[in-house]
Amino acid sequence: MNIMVILGSSRQGRQGEKVAKWVEKTLGEIDDVTIDFVDVAELNLPFYDEPMPPLMAQGKYNNAHGTAWAERVGKADGFVVVTPEYNHSFPAVLKNAIDWVAYGWFYKPVGIVSYGYGSVAGARATEQLRLVFNELRAIPLRDATHIPGIFEAFDADGEPSDATLNDNLKATFAELTIMVKKLKA
Amino acid sequence: MNIMVILGSSRQGRQGEKVAKWVEKTLGEIDDVTIDFVDVAELNLPFYDEPMPPLMAQGKYNNAHGTAWAERVGKADGFVVVTPEYNHSFPAVLKNAIDWVAYGWFYKPVGIVSYGYGSVAGARATEQLRLVFNELRAIPLRDATHIPGIFEAFDADGEPSDATLNDNLKATFAELTIMVKKLKA
Repeated sequence: MNIMVILGSSRQGRQGEKVAKWVEKTLGEIDDVTIDFVDVAELNLPFYDEPMPPLMAQGKYNNAHGTAWAERVGKADGFVVVTPEYNHSFPAVLKNAIDWVAYGWFYKPVGIVSYGYGSVAGARATEQLRLVFNELRAIPLRDATHIPGIFEAFDADGEPSDATLNDNLKATFAELTIMVKKLKA
Repeated sequence: MNIMVILGSSRQGRQGEKVAKWVEKTLGEIDDVTIDFVDVAELNLPFYDEPMPPLMAQGKYNNAHGTAWAERVGKADGFVVVTPEYNHSFPAVLKNAIDWVAYGWFYKPVGIVSYGYGSVAGARATEQLRLVFNELRAIPLRDATHIPGIFEAFDADGEPSDATLNDNLKATFAELTIMVKKLKA
């Protein structure tokens, strides 16, 4: 199965990079998984700028970057989205990447990995994101992974200081692979 | 009082322009109101790209556009935000403009004017936006204005086809001015 990992923050000094690398490494240990790693900073999409919403335009874009991104999303069987929390919600750069595409998300599971400075660990961003993906006919998985205290959450080797986070992440991946298989049937 | 009107969409063919012009015109009929009209397309902020979140950075930005935008927001006594609905939430370009600033929103009322293609009229984007502004210590007003069927909602003169929308908008403004006076006290 082809799983897209999306690193959903782009700012200088972002904490999401170490989270996404840990996600990629752990996901890579599962048999039969190939990973398409997307860093929204490298993706570098402009703010959505098409004459019609993607659903109304039937997936036809005026911009080549829109076509390329939609095709890339379309090739994935499932997603793991890594998100910080900005003002109790997702960052604009992540929402923008999501909004560029319609059909590519349909009927595919989405595992969410969030993080935050304090104890709430991005849980509010996760809940808003669930509603967005639900509208896109994607299936936000019940099992998410929430990482609190992000500044101290990983050691120098990129391993989580709290080893139970590995169990949380593997539970998210277990749900993801179950759902990919069910939805592809 | 100084009210900032924010046109929160930037894409080609956006419907928000006629909504924001109607908001500006109607708001201009109120005594003692000066308007700062912000079109996020003209504002043209990049995705948030600072080494720290604005709250932690104590409002100090490395980028001049961040400083200028924060100072402009800081001068307003209250806000009217015009938002479309993208996948049951606000567009990235609006969230980005909000996230660039922290202190400038504090203790100020925010009236929300939303629109949509169908009958729901952007109500879900409005609810997500309330939670974002609440986190920013702004006061999202109870009275919002929701415009359904946006393609047919305005006539050639920019007047709403449904005249009761004028009453809705004036109710939003009545709350806005009450709250500005209370909060400045």
